[in-house]
Amino acid sequence: MTQLIALDWGTSSLRAYRLGAYGATLELRALPCGVMQLPATDGDDKTGFESAFEQACGDWLRAAPDTPVIAAGMVGSRQGWHEVPYLEVPIAVDRIGASLSTLRSRNGQLIHIVPGLIQHSMLPNVMRGEETQAIGVLNTLDAASDAPGQDVLIGLPGTHSKWVQIHRSKTQNQVAHFDTFMTGEVYAALCGHTILGRSMQASDGRGESENDADAAQRAFERGALVAQTAAGQAGVLSTIFSARTLGLTGVLDGTGQREYLSGLLIGHEIAALQSMLRAQGWQPSQVMLVGEAGLCERYAQVLRAYDFGKVEVLAQATQRGLWQLALTAGLLKQAC
Amino acid sequence: MTQLIALDWGTSSLRAYRLGAYGATLELRALPCGVMQLPATDGDDKTGFESAFEQACGDWLRAAPDTPVIAAGMVGSRQGWHEVPYLEVPIAVDRIGASLSTLRSRNGQLIHIVPGLIQHSMLPNVMRGEETQAIGVLNTLDAASDAPGQDVLIGLPGTHSKWVQIHRSKTQNQVAHFDTFMTGEVYAALCGHTILGRSMQASDGRGESENDADAAQRAFERGALVAQTAAGQAGVLSTIFSARTLGLTGVLDGTGQREYLSGLLIGHEIAALQSMLRAQGWQPSQVMLVGEAGLCERYAQVLRAYDFGKVEVLAQATQRGLWQLALTAGLLKQAC
Repeated sequence: MTQLIALDWGTSSLRAYRLGAYGATLELRALPCGVMQLPATDGDDKTGFESAFEQACGDWLRAAPDTPVIAAGMVGSRQGWHEVPYLEVPIAVDRIGASLSTLRSRNGQLIHIVPGLIQHSMLPNVMRGEETQAIGVLNTLDAASDAPGQDVLIGLPGTHSKWVQIHRSKTQNQVAHFDTFMTGEVYAALCGHTILGRSMQASDGRGESENDADAAQRAFERGALVAQTAAGQAGVLSTIFSARTLGLTGVLDGTGQREYLSGLLIGHEIAALQSMLRAQGWQPSQVMLVGEAGLCERYAQVLRAYDFGKVEVLAQATQRGLWQLALTAGLLKQAC
Repeated sequence: MTQLIALDWGTSSLRAYRLGAYGATLELRALPCGVMQLPATDGDDKTGFESAFEQACGDWLRAAPDTPVIAAGMVGSRQGWHEVPYLEVPIAVDRIGASLSTLRSRNGQLIHIVPGLIQHSMLPNVMRGEETQAIGVLNTLDAASDAPGQDVLIGLPGTHSKWVQIHRSKTQNQVAHFDTFMTGEVYAALCGHTILGRSMQASDGRGESENDADAAQRAFERGALVAQTAAGQAGVLSTIFSARTLGLTGVLDGTGQREYLSGLLIGHEIAALQSMLRAQGWQPSQVMLVGEAGLCERYAQVLRAYDFGKVEVLAQATQRGLWQLALTAGLLKQAC
């Protein structure tokens, strides 16, 4: 029986989850209807949000009209359906679920929108959607009673990767601090729109034969370690040029250059993260990664190479987070 | 009277100089015939180099058939007209002029090509063309007898900026070391192909009214100083996101975001350069900049903000360098 309709509504995609008792996923739909690429509009729906919402879960709601609906991500941004102000970090995790905003669709359906988080500082930081994934991770950790009270670092690799520092005490979880790295988007821009991409070959990630896979892996590792060498102190703007020169000097082939650059950028990200954590004197008991499986594996490799201790990859963080938020907000019937 | 035809033949453009006595520029032609965008080919000229060469200086050579021709830049690369092996750094500057390679055009014209430089290391570095500009700078310095024997740092801002460390003694100038930063190309890729560009407005650089110009200048300075703050330790992959968040929080407008990002990247470049020079224990007596005037002014501002001492911008380095190389190679008649 449907207990919750949960939407993960980002910039480029919309994922709709039909969740049953205890948050079990009964059905999942992935639509290319992100906030920045909505479907064609009709007279009543100038922005396309109504149509996308109907496509995502109209039939689910007709089948179970009283089901609560919750949504997280860019849907709550200025470019979204309904702008929801950011909540300020540091913040107790439970306060996020207690601060949902509401919107009514043209059919009268109430939709609860999760606020994003902002960290005010000289270089402000924002997130929308990742707070929900972080809550999903904590939900899993708490359910497993896995070392309660120990701080964790949650990594969300992607176009923009986020690193969320969680302080855990016996009474509450707190988002203490977070950082953003544009590594994924920078990698794509460098491969697609600079001289570095010209000599690269498309790669399925790890090559075709076993030898190719080994060579690609070695190139990735070679890149990943650059940031911790003396030469790496030159910083990303300088070290990336070596993806080209190692091609020119015959050290790396086209696939190798692509893998090397991937490792190089992730290595710079992890090295910078590490030095920031050291400067803060903060050491997490473990690192939890959430995201696309292949990318998480790359990050896990680099984290291990940089001695980050226990690293774990978690799945289903988004639907767990949305379920937990709905629970905290009192949207779910006691029975489930 | 024409003494030398000097070609600065890069990736996207070809500049031809007709030089007279003492290297005075008699005529200059700029053609969009870089190594990567050559004119349409004919039957005998499969690559287009012959046609471009004819366009650049065919009439000059018919008017003065015995004039020596020298060319520097990507024309000597693997994708160029005739590949010339790199010379290894460190190297005495005079050895470059003594190592020109030659090529004969289909009309029998001898063309002397300047070799680029390579620096073998874990992250190899290469240049083609910038060595010639550096020689032009040294030529100017030596002619002015400006502090002979004092080391100088030559900065060549551009798509890929190069920083060339010159050791000067009473007997010779030596290219001791050089670094590359892809700052210009990264800036263009970030503005054109990432989310950072979406909220930026096109800018003529410094705004239209005086107030606009002041605001743009302040945004540039704000960005330039980030790299030397604690938050800047997060590195470029992280700090660039602030160009977006300072827009979201209303601190910077569209033009401001663009200027801020420009300052931020140049600041990271200069901060990294500074820490590398310190690690090497090498301190130049002055910094000489060569390149597009507006860009050199930006770099000069940031260098001063980072306490780089005496910073000077020099013009005409390319033609002076080509002249000096032709002189060293014995291509010029004694009389001039």
